[in-house]
Amino acid sequence: MTTADRSATKILLDESEQPTRWYNLLADLPTPPPPVLHPGTLEPVGPDDLAPLFPMELIGQEVTTERYVEIPGSVLDVYRLWRPSPLYRAHRLEKALGTPARIYYKYEGVSPAGSHKPNTAVPQAYYNAQAGIRRLTTETGAGQWGTALAFACAQYGLECEVWQVRASYDQKPYRRMMIETFGATIHPSPSELTAAGRAILAADPHSPGSLGIAISEAVEVAAQNADTNYALGSVLNHVLLHQTVIGEEALLQLAKVGETPDLIVGCTGGGSNFGGLVFPFLREKLAGRMAPEIRAVEPAACPSLTRGTYAYDFGDTAGMTPLMKMHTLGHDFIPDPIHAGGLRYHGMSPLISHLYEENLISATAKPQRECFAAGVQFARTEGILPAPEPTHAIAAAIEEALRCKETGEEKVILTALCGHGHLDLPAYDAYLSGAMQDHDLSDAAFSAALGALPAVPAG
Amino acid sequence: MTTADRSATKILLDESEQPTRWYNLLADLPTPPPPVLHPGTLEPVGPDDLAPLFPMELIGQEVTTERYVEIPGSVLDVYRLWRPSPLYRAHRLEKALGTPARIYYKYEGVSPAGSHKPNTAVPQAYYNAQAGIRRLTTETGAGQWGTALAFACAQYGLECEVWQVRASYDQKPYRRMMIETFGATIHPSPSELTAAGRAILAADPHSPGSLGIAISEAVEVAAQNADTNYALGSVLNHVLLHQTVIGEEALLQLAKVGETPDLIVGCTGGGSNFGGLVFPFLREKLAGRMAPEIRAVEPAACPSLTRGTYAYDFGDTAGMTPLMKMHTLGHDFIPDPIHAGGLRYHGMSPLISHLYEENLISATAKPQRECFAAGVQFARTEGILPAPEPTHAIAAAIEEALRCKETGEEKVILTALCGHGHLDLPAYDAYLSGAMQDHDLSDAAFSAALGALPAVPAG
Repeated sequence: MTTADRSATKILLDESEQPTRWYNLLADLPTPPPPVLHPGTLEPVGPDDLAPLFPMELIGQEVTTERYVEIPGSVLDVYRLWRPSPLYRAHRLEKALGTPARIYYKYEGVSPAGSHKPNTAVPQAYYNAQAGIRRLTTETGAGQWGTALAFACAQYGLECEVWQVRASYDQKPYRRMMIETFGATIHPSPSELTAAGRAILAADPHSPGSLGIAISEAVEVAAQNADTNYALGSVLNHVLLHQTVIGEEALLQLAKVGETPDLIVGCTGGGSNFGGLVFPFLREKLAGRMAPEIRAVEPAACPSLTRGTYAYDFGDTAGMTPLMKMHTLGHDFIPDPIHAGGLRYHGMSPLISHLYEENLISATAKPQRECFAAGVQFARTEGILPAPEPTHAIAAAIEEALRCKETGEEKVILTALCGHGHLDLPAYDAYLSGAMQDHDLSDAAFSAALGALPAVPAG
Repeated sequence: MTTADRSATKILLDESEQPTRWYNLLADLPTPPPPVLHPGTLEPVGPDDLAPLFPMELIGQEVTTERYVEIPGSVLDVYRLWRPSPLYRAHRLEKALGTPARIYYKYEGVSPAGSHKPNTAVPQAYYNAQAGIRRLTTETGAGQWGTALAFACAQYGLECEVWQVRASYDQKPYRRMMIETFGATIHPSPSELTAAGRAILAADPHSPGSLGIAISEAVEVAAQNADTNYALGSVLNHVLLHQTVIGEEALLQLAKVGETPDLIVGCTGGGSNFGGLVFPFLREKLAGRMAPEIRAVEPAACPSLTRGTYAYDFGDTAGMTPLMKMHTLGHDFIPDPIHAGGLRYHGMSPLISHLYEENLISATAKPQRECFAAGVQFARTEGILPAPEPTHAIAAAIEEALRCKETGEEKVILTALCGHGHLDLPAYDAYLSGAMQDHDLSDAAFSAALGALPAVPAG
């Protein structure tokens, strides 16, 4: 490896170099994360508890401690529509910053949905089709996950039914149109189609909806129909497992230019983009083969890691899911309407939460205007318009690169550009016009929601 | 080369394989195209006539007969943000069609603007910056070209001022937002900023504008300011020259899998995407090294090649430009508001028109509903949502592939997927909801506009 190799802008992998296994971090953790509990019995949940919603293959992946899981050939075929994804060296951003740091970003916006979400939507659709399921239901907020699942279902001849939070359904119509173009059916949530939706509408006919309500509707329909399952786009172990193709590819790509990261930064909402990038690097770190600092970046308006509590809580607002030990702001917490819709989740993946408790990763929070300033600088130098979510990671990468400018350190910074912002342009418009506000939170705003945590005896 | 190589989905080129020269078809044509004429003297225009609007390097490229033009290193650097672009084998579309044909598409949607337009916007900004120009003006319809020039100007520290047709400015606000995010200034046209705009607004304060009016405004500002030049995104020889990187890369990529195209189809508006793809293949055909059929696909609502006249006409509606011999529907012709805004041009590149007259290419026209049906099928199989413009080429490729299904021919079909449709989703919504209309044209609709052609003596 020579310095000359590092002059490349895009570091590509051939399809023959595509990873054929997902990496399971559970196999290498020093301590196991706490179990998921049944909300009635407070006992660990078993496969039968999850069987009404998920196929057995995915339930198995949720709890397996095997280090690697083979990716089915059919999934690899669909992955090849966009994978391996490119790793970019941010030459032009570095130059604009005047930094001696070398910044690399792994770009997932090349996927059909424009984000990392199809990495798990495709295997989820595949395993459900294999199990004879006819239809998948899901919720979506800003719409990235709904788009990904609609695309994946089109590949396997599954029907796809999406409940989208009413506020987003009305504000971001382009996402609905894209989901429909991929052949899925989409409903604004709350809807008249479910008991959960009807109850909300009876109380408030003009309800703007929430992710929690949309989950309730999608889960209700899946639970009541034997030919229908439910799919989730983040938080769970099997979702993060599927996303590890991101980090496995990035490892190969950095090796091609002889680089080892000193810092890895990723944005966190439910944790799937972050986990997908960092787990393979964490494997290398735990094995002593490299020593990168690993940092999660979350929105200041929804800071589950940096200001939440580590406790058992529900995954949804209505309290229908099993209890997960995680960093949470309380399942009643309704984040302010920041533009990074994908990061507006009250909790955090139990696996990421466990890593944070074990001091294997650090975390920081960013207000949205700093993130959009970083997004605009990135677009004008690198040419790619980032989605609002990864602007959080870009802001942190720029902060570190400017610190290197002061110290003269030639740090290697790796980040995930987990999606493009083509369907989020009104957020850039709000930023550029000066209409965007930050949403810093008072301590009182937290206490209220944290008071509603379910009581789970210490065990 | 083995059949196994053809199992790849994406055929990639390394940055070291990036073409370093543009190809100039003028060097290899059996007969030269007719000269561009000054509208006053009817004499061929010279460099001095064009100097108020373009830098001398681009004027030189407009008329050179050198076979190759070296791409400046700085332009290659910016190109590497997305070039070489991928060539895809449409395995999943072929399977859905049940065709023995092999379909390849060259995807230009990976660029910062989401289309092929930056291939010429970047060198145009570069040469203007080299010439000491401070600002570029341009017009844009749907907005692809305005986005590309805004991005390119950001790379070279140029100001960029865009006049966008008022109807599009109001209907497709995401494009305006993207242009502003890249740092350009954008005005709805007609505007109060120019004499041309004020005259239109005085007659009709609610004018929806037209591409012709927007050109007039951009040209007026450039002509009146010594530090300001004008940039055009299609039609002219130097624009098509810059786009030949598309075809040069595709040639290398097909060679990697041992393929030679039997049919090349591309959509045509002004002709730059089509020319960029096919000129290098035409060089090979003229030299006897391959024999592909080359077919242009235009919208039935704006069929300059298949139903227009080959005559001298103005490039703009107001009659401010030099006279070009081209296939034209008449510079007064206002195309119906089909969704493929990039194909709504009354004329055709003089170079493409000449090829058509010389029987070096064929042409066909497609109504938009057939094109959107093809676009939806493409999205659901290949995962990429095409812009409305390339759905014309996709529709023609599918038509040929289905013909091969009847005959059993294993034809190799190559097409250009010149952009994604993320900012065109309302068009898909109109199609899927059944609200979209075709716009077939009566003979009477043509005669009216063709009656207004300028009188140029044969000679």
